[in-house]
Amino acid sequence: MKILCNQKKLAHAITNAQRAINTKTTVEILRGILISAEDNKLKVRGYDNEISIETEIEAQVELAGSIVINSKLIGEIVRKLPDSYISIETDDNFNVFISCMSSRFKIKGISAEDFPNIDSIEVGDMLKISQADMKNMIRNTVFAAATDNSNQTFNGELIEIDSEKINMAALDGYRLATMTNPFKSGVDKNLSAIVPRNTLNHLNSLLSDDGDLYIAISPRDVVFKFDNTRLVGRLIDGEYADYKSLLPKEYVTKISVETKKLQEAVERASLLFTSDKNNTIKMTVTDKLLVITSNNENGNAYEEIGVEFEGDMLDIAFNSRYFLDGIKYLNSEYVSIEFLGAINPCVIKPLDDIEYTYLILPVRISN
Amino acid sequence: MKILCNQKKLAHAITNAQRAINTKTTVEILRGILISAEDNKLKVRGYDNEISIETEIEAQVELAGSIVINSKLIGEIVRKLPDSYISIETDDNFNVFISCMSSRFKIKGISAEDFPNIDSIEVGDMLKISQADMKNMIRNTVFAAATDNSNQTFNGELIEIDSEKINMAALDGYRLATMTNPFKSGVDKNLSAIVPRNTLNHLNSLLSDDGDLYIAISPRDVVFKFDNTRLVGRLIDGEYADYKSLLPKEYVTKISVETKKLQEAVERASLLFTSDKNNTIKMTVTDKLLVITSNNENGNAYEEIGVEFEGDMLDIAFNSRYFLDGIKYLNSEYVSIEFLGAINPCVIKPLDDIEYTYLILPVRISN
Repeated sequence: MKILCNQKKLAHAITNAQRAINTKTTVEILRGILISAEDNKLKVRGYDNEISIETEIEAQVELAGSIVINSKLIGEIVRKLPDSYISIETDDNFNVFISCMSSRFKIKGISAEDFPNIDSIEVGDMLKISQADMKNMIRNTVFAAATDNSNQTFNGELIEIDSEKINMAALDGYRLATMTNPFKSGVDKNLSAIVPRNTLNHLNSLLSDDGDLYIAISPRDVVFKFDNTRLVGRLIDGEYADYKSLLPKEYVTKISVETKKLQEAVERASLLFTSDKNNTIKMTVTDKLLVITSNNENGNAYEEIGVEFEGDMLDIAFNSRYFLDGIKYLNSEYVSIEFLGAINPCVIKPLDDIEYTYLILPVRISN
Repeated sequence: MKILCNQKKLAHAITNAQRAINTKTTVEILRGILISAEDNKLKVRGYDNEISIETEIEAQVELAGSIVINSKLIGEIVRKLPDSYISIETDDNFNVFISCMSSRFKIKGISAEDFPNIDSIEVGDMLKISQADMKNMIRNTVFAAATDNSNQTFNGELIEIDSEKINMAALDGYRLATMTNPFKSGVDKNLSAIVPRNTLNHLNSLLSDDGDLYIAISPRDVVFKFDNTRLVGRLIDGEYADYKSLLPKEYVTKISVETKKLQEAVERASLLFTSDKNNTIKMTVTDKLLVITSNNENGNAYEEIGVEFEGDMLDIAFNSRYFLDGIKYLNSEYVSIEFLGAINPCVIKPLDDIEYTYLILPVRISN
């Protein structure tokens, strides 16, 4: 391989590819990134057995070829080189010669033949959605997926696409977050896939606020394409829970409240908690007033917020972190909360056109 | 105690005081900050047996008094409260009641009587220097003080003040950094003190780029006053090394080089090093060219920079981190390096009016 490419573009591509790399792996080749040059294009890929992230940049390719280079080392070198053109050359012994202006490096690479090949993935039609919409959907739902559940489907998020809309849902047994976006897919068939939580977190960190995202789903993989980057993720096999049946159809108490005020009050009432456990906040819902209190060995906190109110008065308690998760990324000025009594799930919905639902189970408390 | 004060100002004072607190201490009261109210002033103090940081803010004091409150807890609460007025009240059982708008907290405090008293420190005249000058002097020298030397004086930095100038010097056996600023003290006597490295790092993080700094030195303590903050630090007892005798009077090779280019070249040549040990860079000084190379199991690096040259050609090697420390905070466009051969210390000096000297020992290498 012998190529010449722009330092800034290469640094950016390496940063993207590095996100896929699990730095704790003991498999040396998976700590490396694959660099492949062909047809005046340089592809830079990171892979961790679950996802692959590849970014393509322009390059002047004098000799096609590919090599695997330790991701940390090549990243540090390329980022520290001047904003100029970088030459990368390899020899038959997998030595890599990097030069730029008055700097020259020689480092040891690894044969690209041993790098896992994912190019053979076959995917169907690519569907188009805006990157900003996808980011927003992921941010508002992905936290509700479990991290380490023995039921693998709970560690992923369901993506459902039909000709009218795209819907995402995540649940972990304590809460359910689901969001829908209108979406003209242009295809007739309905698609669905369970995408690992980590894959969606990586996607979220790579997406920008402009531009389109293309999605293709195969029986085994999902492919996301955007800008000059391609993320391929293995899907979770299995039947996703029938989450729609979990959503209550009625309520006995309903309030409307300013989202930001609710968030700040819950955050303050949570300040006395020193761990993620035992972080129960109590809510007393009365006509016109929502009172939030907490109480532990550090002391106690009291917060009150004015609300619109309908139905019965209520005392209920929540895990404060779980409660906050459901509102902190919402852009809606007001939310409604529908309660079905102190021991049944309640439902938080934005009071605007956003199709978002957050269901959360209360914590049982003894008075 | 019963007071009313501004949320932003209190948050800022707590953040300052928290810097003095050693969060690893097992002494509960030293995890707390002391809040004392009197004469429409609120003093907020953190202390860790070595330094004390106290910031004073305006407050409406209805009832004078003082209390110690867990620093982390009060910091988090005050920072999360709205930008408004905060009321703090204590009762006879050391309960602390904090309220602001529609938020109320009750937390447990500790009697202020048990908090170490440092108010009795007697200091002489306060000398005035600009905060920006002091920051610059600390930044360019403090790294050369040792961190854990059995000779305690090496873990601090010497500050010498006479009627003409202020001078600071730090050395650890491998390098020496010293900087001098012109300074009209207005006092006749010469002062000197050995200030712990940590105290100077704390001071550096608190100083701003404008305004004055007042310094007073007592036999046991140093007091720095600036803005509304007072930092008191215990001095290190002992005789400081006669560092001036270490500086060579002559040289056999001298180069002048662009500071930024030198820094970047050394940084790049250091990229192959994976630990702080075995990070030796070699320099070959020839007429017109400085070549910097490194070589280890990861590969090798080569850098070259044009230089002004005088004297004999030379091969020499350095610990790259130690070398970088001496130039990375310098604002001078060019530096000179004076060598006394491959096994003697060399001296780096800025090529402008700044009175700064960095002496560094080379690493012995076998060819």
